This record gives sequence, C-alpha cells and structure tokens, in this order.
Amino acid sequence: AQCFNPISCGAVSEELFLWLISDGKLFLTEAFNVIMEEILHKGTDSEEKVCEWKDPDQLRALLDLDLREHGESHKQLLQRVRDVARYSVKTCHPRFFNQLFAGVDYHALTGRLLTETLNTSQYTYEVAPVFVLMEEEVLCKLRSLVGWSEGDGIFCPGGSMSNMYAMNVARYWAFPQVKTQGLWATPRMAIFTSQQGHYSMKKAAAFLGIGTDNVFIVQVDESGSMRPEDLEAKIVQAKSQDAVPFFVNATAGTTVQGAFDPLNRIADISERNGMWMHVDAAWGGSVLFSKKHKHLVAGIERANSVTWNPHKMLLAGLQCSVVLFRDTTNLLMHCHSAKATYLFQQDKFYDTSLDTGDKSIQCGRKVDCLKLWLMWKAIGTHGLSERVEKAFALARYLVEEMEKRDNFKLGPFVNVCFWFIPPSLRRKENSADYQESLSKVAPVIKERMIKRGTMMVGYQPMDGHVNFFRMVVVSPQLTTKDMDFFLDEIEDLGKDL
Amino acid sequence: AQCFNPISCGAVSEELFLWLISDGKLFLTEAFNVIMEEILHKGTDSEEKVCEWKDPDQLRALLDLDLREHGESHKQLLQRVRDVARYSVKTCHPRFFNQLFAGVDYHALTGRLLTETLNTSQYTYEVAPVFVLMEEEVLCKLRSLVGWSEGDGIFCPGGSMSNMYAMNVARYWAFPQVKTQGLWATPRMAIFTSQQGHYSMKKAAAFLGIGTDNVFIVQVDESGSMRPEDLEAKIVQAKSQDAVPFFVNATAGTTVQGAFDPLNRIADISERNGMWMHVDAAWGGSVLFSKKHKHLVAGIERANSVTWNPHKMLLAGLQCSVVLFRDTTNLLMHCHSAKATYLFQQDKFYDTSLDTGDKSIQCGRKVDCLKLWLMWKAIGTHGLSERVEKAFALARYLVEEMEKRDNFKLGPFVNVCFWFIPPSLRRKENSADYQESLSKVAPVIKERMIKRGTMMVGYQPMDGHVNFFRMVVVSPQLTTKDMDFFLDEIEDLGKDL
Repeated sequence: AQCFNPISCGAVSEELFLWLISDGKLFLTEAFNVIMEEILHKGTDSEEKVCEWKDPDQLRALLDLDLREHGESHKQLLQRVRDVARYSVKTCHPRFFNQLFAGVDYHALTGRLLTETLNTSQYTYEVAPVFVLMEEEVLCKLRSLVGWSEGDGIFCPGGSMSNMYAMNVARYWAFPQVKTQGLWATPRMAIFTSQQGHYSMKKAAAFLGIGTDNVFIVQVDESGSMRPEDLEAKIVQAKSQDAVPFFVNATAGTTVQGAFDPLNRIADISERNGMWMHVDAAWGGSVLFSKKHKHLVAGIERANSVTWNPHKMLLAGLQCSVVLFRDTTNLLMHCHSAKATYLFQQDKFYDTSLDTGDKSIQCGRKVDCLKLWLMWKAIGTHGLSERVEKAFALARYLVEEMEKRDNFKLGPFVNVCFWFIPPSLRRKENSADYQESLSKVAPVIKERMIKRGTMMVGYQPMDGHVNFFRMVVVSPQLTTKDMDFFLDEIEDLGKDL
Repeated sequence: AQCFNPISCGAVSEELFLWLISDGKLFLTEAFNVIMEEILHKGTDSEEKVCEWKDPDQLRALLDLDLREHGESHKQLLQRVRDVARYSVKTCHPRFFNQLFAGVDYHALTGRLLTETLNTSQYTYEVAPVFVLMEEEVLCKLRSLVGWSEGDGIFCPGGSMSNMYAMNVARYWAFPQVKTQGLWATPRMAIFTSQQGHYSMKKAAAFLGIGTDNVFIVQVDESGSMRPEDLEAKIVQAKSQDAVPFFVNATAGTTVQGAFDPLNRIADISERNGMWMHVDAAWGGSVLFSKKHKHLVAGIERANSVTWNPHKMLLAGLQCSVVLFRDTTNLLMHCHSAKATYLFQQDKFYDTSLDTGDKSIQCGRKVDCLKLWLMWKAIGTHGLSERVEKAFALARYLVEEMEKRDNFKLGPFVNVCFWFIPPSLRRKENSADYQESLSKVAPVIKERMIKRGTMMVGYQPMDGHVNFFRMVVVSPQLTTKDMDFFLDEIEDLGKDL
C-alpha cells in the first residue's frame, strides 16, 4: 500500500483511465508519485541525507548519461527519475543552509508545476492572458512595498539579469543615443558599487560593453556597508579621469555578510551628482514585508530602480526575480523595444499595450509571476511578513547559542557568518600560522559534511578574513532544534581538527 | 469516481498519509489532479477550446488578482488553480498553431516537474551534481550533431540570450580588451544579419553597447534566404565607414518564412574577412536529427557558434535553448568569468572545473538540460528524428491541400505561410485596393478564431507582403485530419468576408 498511483487504486473514471494509461500520461503520473515520495517526503525529512555524495566519475557511471539511438522502457525511465532524485541535492531539506534559496513552499511549487504544464511565453496577451495581468498586479504590489504608487518593472531570469536591466535602462536614460549609435557616441562612463556588492555588477559592465575597469569599487565599513564618503571620493576620482558617473549600485543585503548600504545617504549623493541610483535588494528586499525590519532599507523609495528576488527569503522557488522602476515615462520599453512585426502586430483586436514582451531583451520569456502570486494568495502579506521575521529570529537564536559556546567565533556581519575554532586552534589566536591554519578548517569540515550528507552550509574567504561559514536560515520548516543540531554537528565534524 | 486523489482512495501508507494531509502537500497533490484533468486531459482534446477568450477587464474581474493581508482557504486556492488553467491558452492543444513551441511531450514535462521540485541552480557541482554532468553530456551530443567532436556551450534563458552570448564571445575573441576597458578602447564594430534574421540581433547590439546602427542588414531572396553577394557588399560598406566587420549572423530557419541561409557561402565570406560566423538555428537546428532534411544546414560545422532551441521543433518545453561553440580555448569562461570567491572557491575537495557557472552571465541559473535529456532517453535519437520528419511531412500535406483549394494562396516560404482569400476578393487581384483589403482579412479571422476558441494561428505582414498566416505543425499528436480541420475552419471563419 506504499504507492499512491491513482490508477492502481481505481479512483478514476473509465474515460480518464483510458487517457491516463496512454504511455506519456501514465509515466507523468507515476513520476509525480516518485517526486512526492523521494524528493518532498524523504527530502524534507531531517533523518534523511541532504545529499548522497558521489564523486564525478562514480556519478557518471551510476547515471548512465549517454543518449542513444533508441528509447528506453517505461520501467527504465522511471528508474532514471528515481536516480536523478536520489543523487541530487535536496535544497528543500531543513538542513540545507548552503544557498539563499533554501527550503520549499508547497503553494509556490504548485504554481511552478502549473506554469510548466501551461508552457507559454510571457510576451503577449494573446498567448498569456492570465499571466500578463498577473505580472502587472504582482509588480504593482511589490512597487507599493517599495513605496511607489506608479512605475514599471519586469520579471527577469535571475538577479544578475535584473541588475543588468537596471544598468542598461540607466545608461539609456543618461545617453539615449547609445541604443542606436553604441558607446562610441558617448563619453566614458563610470559605475559605482561597494567591495561587497554582487559580482553581477562587473559581469554587467563587461557584457554591456562598459568594461570592468569602469566599475569603481567603493570601500565598506567593518559590517560590510558602503562608506558614503568613499563613494564621494570615487566619484571625484572618476571625473578626474574624464569618466561620467551615471550609475550607483547600493546593496540591501550583501550576498555574504548581509550588510545594508545606507540608502538615504547614497540617494543624497546620487541626486547631487545627477546619477541613477539602483538598489540591489535581491536578498534584502524581502524585509519590506516586515514592519520590524524594514528600517534596514529606509530610503529605498528614493532609488530609480530596485532588484528583488522573491526566490530567496520568500521561498518562491528559482527563478523569481524582478527589477522595479520608479520611472513613469515608459523608459524600459523605449530602451529595449525592437517592435517585431510578427509578434507585436499593431492591428490586433485588443489593447496592444498589454503585449509587454517588448520590454524584455528576451523573446520567449518564462512565466515567473504565478508561483509568487499563488503563494501570496495562500498565506497573505501577513504570512510573508511572518516568514521574514522568523528568519531573523532564528538567526538571532543562532548567534546567541554561538556566543555560549567556545568553539565559534562570529564575524561582524548581519548574516550569521562565523568561524569554527577546532580544539587544536583554541586560544592560539596569537600564533604565527593561526590564520593560515584556520583557513583550512572550513574546507575540511565541508568535505566531511557533504560526504556524511547530514547538512550543507557554504564557506568563503573575504577581504582579509580567512574561510568562514555563512549560515542561511530562511526555510519556514526550521526550528531552534535544527539550529542546535547544526551547532552540534559542526562541532562533531571538527572535533579532531 | 471522477477524482484520482490518492488519499481518498486509501492507497497510501499511514506515515505517508499523515505527511500528505499536512496542508501544503495535500494541496499540491490535489492541484496535480487539476493539472492532469483541466490542462492535459481537456487541453489536448480537440473537441475542447484552445482558449477561453475574455477581454482584459472581464478577465481581471474573473481572476480576482488582488493580493491581500490574509491568506485564503484550501478550497478557494484550488479554485484559483482551476481558474488559471481555464483562462490560459492551451499551448498543448492540437489546434494551437500560433507559436513555434506548440504541443506537449510528457517525458519532457516530467523532467520539468522534477527540475522545479529539486529547485537548484546550475552553477556548481556541489549543489547540482547530476545536472552539471548532464548538461555536459547533452551539450556534447548536440555538438556532435553539428559536426564538432570538441567545443563548448551552455544552456541560456531563450534563443535571444543565446544569440547575445555568441555576439559577446565573438566580440571578446576579436577585441579582448573590451572586457576590462569597454568599447571606448576599440574601433567601431559591424554586425551583419539578414532582413529576415531574428530581431534579437538588434536587441543584442543595443544591449551590448554596439548600437543598432551598427547592425548591417543584408538583403534576402524571394524565399527569405540571405544573398551572399549582398553580404559582401555590406562588408565593403561597413569598412568604408571605418567599422570593423567582426560578426555575421546566418539564420537556419527564419522565424516567419522558415528560410535557411546558404551557410557554406557565408562561411567562405566570413573566413576571407576574418569574421566570427554565428548560426541562429533556434528554429531550424533540429533538422540535424533528420538524415532527410539536414542538407538544409550544410556547412553549419564551419560556424564558430550555433544557437539551437530544443523547446521548438523537438518539444522540450520552454525554456530550452543552447548556444554551442566550436572554440576549444575556454573562450566562453574567459569572456564571462568574474571568479566570485563566495561561490567558486578554489579550495574545494573536488575538481572545480566542474563548477561551470562562471561561464554564464547569470548567477543562479535554471536547470534546462533535464527535460531534454529525459525526453531523449525516452524516444532516442531515432524518435527525435521521426518527430522532425513528421513535422515536414505534415507541412507538405498542408501545402498540397491548399493548392487544391481556391481560397488559399501560398507564400514563397519554407514554413507554411499563406493568405486566405475570402469570397469578396477572389479573382480581384488586379483591383486597386486588393492588397489593402487583403491585409484586413487575417486580423478579422484571428479575432473570430480566438473568440470561437477552436484554434490559434499567427499572422504578420513582412517586407511588402500584407498580413499572412504562418502555420506551425510540430506537435507529434497532429494528424492529417487536424490539417483538414484547419483548412475548413479558416474557410468557415472567413466565408462572409
């Protein structure tokens, strides 16, 4: 009685039964059962492994990846589904702390399965009537949380792309001739972002033809927050090199430290210098749901654009990223449109301003709004707010517990970043090779952790700090027990180091 | 007995039952039943409507899109799933001929649901071990069909992005200093594409800072295929304007006409001029599976890069697009990498060359390989080849049937593009307002068609041709009966015009 195959239990009409047993549909139904059992049931069970580690050669052999002339049997294919599930990392597992998209929300997941099955492209009202209206509504709600009653926006394939959109629209705003004539018709441009800003700023500058040398790196304070006085200094420096400052990226929730740049002070400087101010709030934007924590982004409403990834703290699922604009002059459309006549015909029988696809640099564009919309409908603004506040509360708990234990040393960060100090290094802070030895601890613990499979957490070095762990606690399934387990497990993994 | 809810039929173990009835999982299971019944069962039934047309104001009211403070009941949410399904266009319907991604493959769809549930990002072996190896294998197979035993590649969010990747890598190949110094350190550059090349070339030129004026438009012949002699003329013209020709885009299967550019002749010209040759085979690349039709892309192996969208003719589902490179010097990585230390740590315990994410301009990147891999495993190279050949055979049937009827006039195209000539215009080719009247026929028929809901097909004007229909026949569910229905229905919709 372990299976819950609707056919074997006879609970379907004859007509549906006949349709279902045609091969593809039966397969889909049975695979859904595998998904429920192997990924969602076992994968969220803290007694099960987060990952079943295999090294690449072993895994290649186990998966039999080769693609051949002839197809395989139903049974073989179902085993393949099980294998993919088995050897993949369970990011829905309560002990997956490795990335900012940890956890699972079942309503969002429902929206994602619905999206995949409907298989349409978010470019015209004609083929995506529901999703064109839904995107409009979701963007409007997110903008209102930022503090804008009007504006524009679009869902993009990830935060890096959202940041690129902002940079390109800003460039068009400053130098509209760039769209037709390219950068040879403009002066050299300068971009500003902090040391701790996301690397997508450099990727964007390279991709957009501006060049990484024209990204001026602004210093941060000990907590990872941009120093406004250094921003001013860097603007002066750029000008002295005949580069025109046009774009400043402030970060709300840096990737590693979780630091928030001082938005009001950056807005003042941006305004004084006639620059476009962007806020990369991919990680931290979700604090806008929390009355308690939204002071962290005070001033965000003064930005010209904001990147925000609901697939992170809100758990909408990959990918769910928006870029929002304060602009009300249709700048996004003017900047990106190419007016393809085969897609955006002007003699359609409905209001063609609903064909929003030309705002995108993509042609076909995945529907990313439904998962967020359905989750929001399910738990309400209130539920999303609770989710954010729970994440902060758990992080606070973890910090307090670490302070009680000798083995942990917290970094000066908003995210919970810490060093585990193994027995051999305790009270040796002043020895000559202390930092070098400490830098080797996290990789060893990580390797043991992954091979044991009990949990996953990321580590990295940063700006003179040797390898430290960064803990992500966003999943609503988490409890303080999981936090205790985490601390005990780290201690156990590193007890002989 | 209409429902196939596993719980109501008692076919699950007690442990699984308790887990399932916790709200989110029960909801997901019930929603899956709605998806099976409302989208896949009804949506693929040719007796049902392709779309349930509502105008935007009606639809807004029906959907109740507003997002509120508090969540909704299980029952209400399930109704929302039904509503989304009901008012969305059924792109899996056999009579959806409107876009190049028509139809459904159940194995690919299984891969997509699996991908969504596993919710990981294709950037490191650490969090996507299965998918890193799988992407490598699928790219290798696709490259071998192009004719390359080595090379590189990556899955991108759609064909426009794949084309942009190719353009950026080509630019870096020609002028590596662009990555750091930007376009101010290079001469003006020139790009070449045909009149019928996809509009993403212009979007790419604008986004990359090259500018749309630097896209030189090459003439096509009557069938929509690039005239090589005009390419040579345009290269001379660009040089005379001190622009450096560095990138030519040849198209294998233009979006509207389905024309194939003469790849060998374009390769000769590219080589002579030291240019990067890209082939946008987003639509036509799949002919590589067919021994019978692959002559259409003869010479494709001489290209430097190829865009290919398995979500089109192969039915992998949106989004599934690759850009492939002949290069073996790791140009893609050099061009795009930013070496983020928090993600691509070099002291990991496994071979970090498997952390391929830095080849991307995205950070988080959706897993797009699994749906194609699973479908390929299911039906084999042979099955994919049959799928392509069936699409060609149905198009041929349609052309023959149209030639038998007075009411249709075929365009000079490879794709089935045609005008419906309504009774009032028959044998009036020589009247002064014939073209203008004919241009109004397709929009009227389209409106009636959508409101009737029986089928969907796209229309557009092009290069002096007034509005004509473009028929897409890729779904393996299609039969000649569907073709006959299509012709009869068009005649019926336009009988009073």
